[in-house]
Amino acid sequence: MKKNTAILLIHCPDQKGLIASVTEFLHNNNGNIIDLEQHVDHELLQFFMRVEWELDGFAIPNEKIDDFFGTLIGRKFNMEWQLHFTLKKPRMAIFVSKMSHCLYDILQRYMSGEWDVEIPVIISNHNSLKYIADRFGINFQLFELNKANKAAQEAAEIELLQSLDVDFIVLARYMQILSDDFVSHFPNRIINIHHSFLPAFKGARPYHSAFNRGVKVIGATSHYVTADLDEGPIIAQDVCRVSHKDAIPDLIRKGKNLEKVVLSEAIWTQLQRKVLPYRNKTIVFD
Amino acid sequence: MKKNTAILLIHCPDQKGLIASVTEFLHNNNGNIIDLEQHVDHELLQFFMRVEWELDGFAIPNEKIDDFFGTLIGRKFNMEWQLHFTLKKPRMAIFVSKMSHCLYDILQRYMSGEWDVEIPVIISNHNSLKYIADRFGINFQLFELNKANKAAQEAAEIELLQSLDVDFIVLARYMQILSDDFVSHFPNRIINIHHSFLPAFKGARPYHSAFNRGVKVIGATSHYVTADLDEGPIIAQDVCRVSHKDAIPDLIRKGKNLEKVVLSEAIWTQLQRKVLPYRNKTIVFD
Amino acid sequence: MKKNTAILLIHCPDQKGLIASVTEFLHNNNGNIIDLEQHVDHELLQFFMRVEWELDGFAIPNEKIDDFFGTLIGRKFNMEWQLHFTLKKPRMAIFVSKMSHCLYDILQRYMSGEWDVEIPVIISNHNSLKYIADRFGINFQLFELNKANKAAQEAAEIELLQSLDVDFIVLARYMQILSDDFVSHFPNRIINIHHSFLPAFKGARPYHSAFNRGVKVIGATSHYVTADLDEGPIIAQDVCRVSHKDAIPDLIRKGKNLEKVVLSEAIWTQLQRKVLPYRNKTIVFD
Amino acid sequence: MKKNTAILLIHCPDQKGLIASVTEFLHNNNGNIIDLEQHVDHELLQFFMRVEWELDGFAIPNEKIDDFFGTLIGRKFNMEWQLHFTLKKPRMAIFVSKMSHCLYDILQRYMSGEWDVEIPVIISNHNSLKYIADRFGINFQLFELNKANKAAQEAAEIELLQSLDVDFIVLARYMQILSDDFVSHFPNRIINIHHSFLPAFKGARPYHSAFNRGVKVIGATSHYVTADLDEGPIIAQDVCRVSHKDAIPDLIRKGKNLEKVVLSEAIWTQLQRKVLPYRNKTIVFD
Repeated sequence: MKKNTAILLIHCPDQKGLIASVTEFLHNNNGNIIDLEQHVDHELLQFFMRVEWELDGFAIPNEKIDDFFGTLIGRKFNMEWQLHFTLKKPRMAIFVSKMSHCLYDILQRYMSGEWDVEIPVIISNHNSLKYIADRFGINFQLFELNKANKAAQEAAEIELLQSLDVDFIVLARYMQILSDDFVSHFPNRIINIHHSFLPAFKGARPYHSAFNRGVKVIGATSHYVTADLDEGPIIAQDVCRVSHKDAIPDLIRKGKNLEKVVLSEAIWTQLQRKVLPYRNKTIVFD
Repeated sequence: MKKNTAILLIHCPDQKGLIASVTEFLHNNNGNIIDLEQHVDHELLQFFMRVEWELDGFAIPNEKIDDFFGTLIGRKFNMEWQLHFTLKKPRMAIFVSKMSHCLYDILQRYMSGEWDVEIPVIISNHNSLKYIADRFGINFQLFELNKANKAAQEAAEIELLQSLDVDFIVLARYMQILSDDFVSHFPNRIINIHHSFLPAFKGARPYHSAFNRGVKVIGATSHYVTADLDEGPIIAQDVCRVSHKDAIPDLIRKGKNLEKVVLSEAIWTQLQRKVLPYRNKTIVFD
Repeated sequence: MKKNTAILLIHCPDQKGLIASVTEFLHNNNGNIIDLEQHVDHELLQFFMRVEWELDGFAIPNEKIDDFFGTLIGRKFNMEWQLHFTLKKPRMAIFVSKMSHCLYDILQRYMSGEWDVEIPVIISNHNSLKYIADRFGINFQLFELNKANKAAQEAAEIELLQSLDVDFIVLARYMQILSDDFVSHFPNRIINIHHSFLPAFKGARPYHSAFNRGVKVIGATSHYVTADLDEGPIIAQDVCRVSHKDAIPDLIRKGKNLEKVVLSEAIWTQLQRKVLPYRNKTIVFD
Repeated sequence: MKKNTAILLIHCPDQKGLIASVTEFLHNNNGNIIDLEQHVDHELLQFFMRVEWELDGFAIPNEKIDDFFGTLIGRKFNMEWQLHFTLKKPRMAIFVSKMSHCLYDILQRYMSGEWDVEIPVIISNHNSLKYIADRFGINFQLFELNKANKAAQEAAEIELLQSLDVDFIVLARYMQILSDDFVSHFPNRIINIHHSFLPAFKGARPYHSAFNRGVKVIGATSHYVTADLDEGPIIAQDVCRVSHKDAIPDLIRKGKNLEKVVLSEAIWTQLQRKVLPYRNKTIVFD
């Protein structure tokens, strides 16, 4: 049986009494806390918190929780917060180009029930991977791109994504740069996988750069997309060892293992409502 | 300036209202919480918590906190708890035999101020490393051991350790097995480093066993010492890759890197009061 | 263009002149060596070597290389050797039960051309994953198993595998124990993935055992199958960190990432003819 | 008993017959090869090789090997090579400033016999760590530095290092930038440890940069010093995970574990004559 809980993700200026106020609010309304994590950034003097509680028996009806919390607690402490209900499945769109390793990894987790998510659409600038979407019975939409049509195509993509009520977007080795306008429609709601351990080897062809620099470790980085390319808040990173024996095709092959696992880790974190972006960084509650 | 805080490590049967009760108790007495972590083991139905708060301005005097907390909160919820004050330096005894790598690693951290700890004594069954203790100006005590004198020597060690008000003991590659009686005097207060990724390769000569089995990964494990050899609660583990090219001396050399780092990680965790043993496992708050 | 090379995998008692004899043999017959690795196990006094050379211009025709090498070099030094031609695609059978993560990982690499391999059949004791084989257009054969029919079914499997000229078998989370008789038909030609860092947590339900022991690291191990369960030569291992926060489903989820990557690493090594089993260990040339 | 072997490190343009020629040269002169590794960089079309053979019974006297090899093999193939004798202990100078963790790590390995090396001098721009050199009975030389005296002091350092017949220099968290002139006296003979996973976070205060970027992984890099700061050939790298909970002091503490292990790994590689720098990269034979 699926658990029926609510999750609050909170941040605000650090001050006394924050934890006690939130926990009292929940406790006084008969909300059983099943998970609580908090963090204070002492450089930024910011407080961050994730709290999850059982809705069965909670005194405040779901549709009023946001208002009650805001009125009684949130505004008092200058909080910003997100409220999520675990019974509501997140809706995730996937963007791909021609490489299939991340896509298969995502779809396997989706099909096997590892993730509790809906995938209303796969969008691509090529038809190369349409057959995979077809095999899995997922809606595939082609948006071919060139300099002339980019603005119009992105506008159509935005309209489609909004009509499908998409919560967030995953770029599963999507080899196009999204315009600032597109990104601004989905702030901290687009997850990318970059094939290097950022901030090393930003931009295109990072495995070639890694080879030329002679590093002994390569990596992959999943991050939210912002207007600054490869500069968005990092969600997850992982690395593996390489040696002089690894030519560029070896780096690409080893890197793909990292890419798919790191991207899926970031998606998992997002699905669990365990990641809280703040400025150019993330708090990843575990 | 050193922070002036108190830390409560708590566990009890899981039940409603635990977090709220503790945080209200602190908040109502003007205690500013600076860190809080909790965990519920849903198999064992046990609740675990670490909370740290500032003592400046706290309404209850230090010497009464334990009584007040126990009376108002602890006994009500059937809690077991430890109360620590960060201004009180922990006192750590070190046991060694003939290998110096863990000892130097510990002493470097001590000397450089990385750790806030006192080391009232280094105990050994050999004189081999006495010169190191002398160089660092630390009290060194030799307790030579044989079958005939073991009980008497251990009794003398216990007396010495108690007279020095030792909080916990570190076995830094101490190559003797402590008797059950010795261990029972320091429950969950003796930290050992075992040179394998337990539970693989228990007992003596784990690198020889690893070589013979042909593993591709070796490890080290730091754990509390219990009456069951190599079965105590694990605090920290780490591993590194090896290959067919690594003969036994290579495994020993690579393993030493793991041993010293893993042991020091476990000690750090202990010094921060971030580890809570429960039955044969640990909660390591981070 | 595919490279046209031959590979010799050699082992024999260590003695003087081995490398020089093999390289002279190739050089004198106009064979350009493009890769050479050797290893001496000084415990076992055994010599191991992998050498790859270009066939274009090599003076000895492919079908006579084995005889010439054996007559002129191999028998003189009491060598055992395997000779492989890279233009000949290996043929790999896959055994599965109900879990799909390793299967998808393998099939994605196959479809995308990452691996140069043929997959003549997927065999299972359940129909659960037949739809995947169908989607990928791969021959799927069901061999339902019970105590009464096991010997007969295995005999049928062996016949099928032989008729399909299968080079080696991959157990991609196949949840049945193969009989000694079955294994004896494919010595060092069956690759399994075990979901623990062997030799820790042999047998069934290793994630439950890992949880109960409270380890801070979990792993996965790919090995050749031998008559001794979970004791075969290890080809590849990897690990990841876990904590007290990871309940059994978390260990299973994290472990799956390891399982698929470690199994695919072992298969890659096999496809490259870079693994040489000897007794209960492997030499993995890289 | 110490082994009595010679080691050749070779590189040259890739061409046919290289391995056979070298192994025949050794074999024909009764040299028993105990280790051989080779590598071809197909981008640069360069061949690299390390071969080690026993000197007992070798037909060419030690002092003539270089001449014979050069005349018969080396010049024919346009090789560059280094010849080393394992019975000759390398002489290593250490440069430090104020941090002791790498220095203790090095000295522990030296004292315990893990490394077969001589340390004729420790040089520093501060007196802070003189007491450590004194405790270990190692010659300590202070060269205080300011803008006015830098050239003169470096000239004195070079004279001292040459008079002590130093083979290579280790910068064990030496916080000064060496002049191009100094570096040019010891090409590929100065090993530095940089406290980031280069090429990320070059320059000063990399842990602050890592904190500000919000990376989930930090690293350390050991490399040869060249005229381009932080751009020299990388010998060894390692990384560890960090999270939002790690403030800058935590990154520094965790990073020190990496720094000392990575630097010592690079030194070990150097002592074994297993590293061959070529342009801005290294071949690390293992």
